[in-house]
Amino acid sequence: MGPDPAVAAVRLAVRHALATVEAGDLVLVACSGGADSLALAGALAFEAARSGHQAGGVTVDHGLQEGSDERAAGVAATLSELGLEPAEVRTVTVGSEGGVEAAARTARYAALDAAAAGHRAAAVLLGHTLDDQAETVLLGLARGSGARSLAGMPAVSGIYRRPLLELGRDLTRRACLAMGLTPWDDPHNHDHAFARARVRADVLPALEKGLGPGITAALARTARMLRDDADALDAWAAEALAGAAEDEPGAVRALGVRALAGLPRAVRTRVLHRTAIEAGSPPGTLAAVHVDAVDALVTAWHGQSYVDLPGRVRVRRRCEKLLFGPSEIPRKD
Amino acid sequence: MGPDPAVAAVRLAVRHALATVEAGDLVLVACSGGADSLALAGALAFEAARSGHQAGGVTVDHGLQEGSDERAAGVAATLSELGLEPAEVRTVTVGSEGGVEAAARTARYAALDAAAAGHRAAAVLLGHTLDDQAETVLLGLARGSGARSLAGMPAVSGIYRRPLLELGRDLTRRACLAMGLTPWDDPHNHDHAFARARVRADVLPALEKGLGPGITAALARTARMLRDDADALDAWAAEALAGAAEDEPGAVRALGVRALAGLPRAVRTRVLHRTAIEAGSPPGTLAAVHVDAVDALVTAWHGQSYVDLPGRVRVRRRCEKLLFGPSEIPRKD
Repeated sequence: MGPDPAVAAVRLAVRHALATVEAGDLVLVACSGGADSLALAGALAFEAARSGHQAGGVTVDHGLQEGSDERAAGVAATLSELGLEPAEVRTVTVGSEGGVEAAARTARYAALDAAAAGHRAAAVLLGHTLDDQAETVLLGLARGSGARSLAGMPAVSGIYRRPLLELGRDLTRRACLAMGLTPWDDPHNHDHAFARARVRADVLPALEKGLGPGITAALARTARMLRDDADALDAWAAEALAGAAEDEPGAVRALGVRALAGLPRAVRTRVLHRTAIEAGSPPGTLAAVHVDAVDALVTAWHGQSYVDLPGRVRVRRRCEKLLFGPSEIPRKD
Repeated sequence: MGPDPAVAAVRLAVRHALATVEAGDLVLVACSGGADSLALAGALAFEAARSGHQAGGVTVDHGLQEGSDERAAGVAATLSELGLEPAEVRTVTVGSEGGVEAAARTARYAALDAAAAGHRAAAVLLGHTLDDQAETVLLGLARGSGARSLAGMPAVSGIYRRPLLELGRDLTRRACLAMGLTPWDDPHNHDHAFARARVRADVLPALEKGLGPGITAALARTARMLRDDADALDAWAAEALAGAAEDEPGAVRALGVRALAGLPRAVRTRVLHRTAIEAGSPPGTLAAVHVDAVDALVTAWHGQSYVDLPGRVRVRRRCEKLLFGPSEIPRKD
């Protein structure tokens, strides 16, 4: 009798991920103790023993909940029992920039980067599932900032691998059960102060009810396609930017209006967005409405004198060029 | 005292649409009697009198509800009272292909096309609002078929104009109230047999609750950006298809593998999708999973003999070419 189908599916996904790593190299699993990453840890321990990889595990103690240190020690013990080595806790201090969710994420990835570097790991496996991907797409949809924000999480990004991105969360729970592993249910996953918890508890179920049960897979499929789209358009924009760049003394950046006007809008707005950032406009505050105003200097020019962007960047049209430079508004501080 | 702000907003939107039509030409409004298109009709009557356009209205009787003929006659009477001329009812027979929503839509546009042609109208205004656009994006999301299905409805398409695409549905209700017009509330809008009604009643409110009240505008913004993306990528794919096309006796279409391999995935899959359709695969059944299998003949070639697509289209790889031709499987009928 073979293994439980859920276990087999998780193991197969891990096997595919290990195939991209040289035998003998160390692969770490990032494990919160939740069903997703616990199933991943169990499958990694099993597969690595067969594929000739070293396998270790890291759990991050965010220090955000009472007793998080004990829980992290428990997860590390489980990782160790699975035969993972190292099996360690990394303790982080979560700041507040961008909200606690974003700050925890930043701290977590810094700790994982450090663990990977410290142990010379070739890859770090993350337990994100199809459901996480669908939630990420919906959170991106709320931002309304285009293909890249709907592209979800990549299966491969630097040393990180997400082997479970095509598998549902339910399957990882079944896999844990079959492997005799007891997942920890993070109360933050049910805390409606967090947007992702609201998406999980209310938004996705409402979408499923209204649009059918295939919506989670459809969102993940959408992410994959829009990621390809965004990659292709970014490559086109990089080439177009090089073609449109002009020299202009005194300007941080200058672009030729004629070259810009010949581009499709999707490419032109990407060129303008990127140039605005290069000229000093902060990516977080530069919005589509700003880029549209700059675009109007190209496509709906009727003598507008300039457009001011966040970060004290001013864009002027002069002599068939768009000039990106510092705003002349005097500082008030 | 100026007009009510809601009325002013709808009129301004209509004024912008009329600016793209030559003075003296006839502009029709398609009016269901609902708040959106009724506000549009009222604003068209007002603006056309000032801009020197002729203005008429059409209402379509779909014959799907008891008394729909009387209701349609009532809407036509209202259009006439507004000063629109012609103000007429077009009666259609709704089939069943693709479900009643799709069939009603097909019949409606055929009737509007015919009305526009019969009266030599230069443009037909449609009352779709920001809310309709958000609903359309969500319905596209459920299909999970990429940027084009998320691109929503265009503001301009042939003779059709959608002046209200940036305005909320609530605003059109307020505009009707201020103009003394009584909108008709279509019971189909509340019939949960219809996916759009479910999106309107349940899905969008759940998204608003979970992700914030800006979600409707964010969805519409997403649609606009993804439409630009899809246009740019389609243009790139058309060019790439011309560059990759090869001659091959006996094949319906042939593409060079080397040319295909050099394209970004987003462009290559569009080229393959388009070629499959040209070779006879029906657009409605050809899915991403089929295109991915053809793509593997280019990017993950390990001697696969062929890929069969819907519509008895077979794709083979031979001598650095992909050959699209009829499947050799004998008909069973």
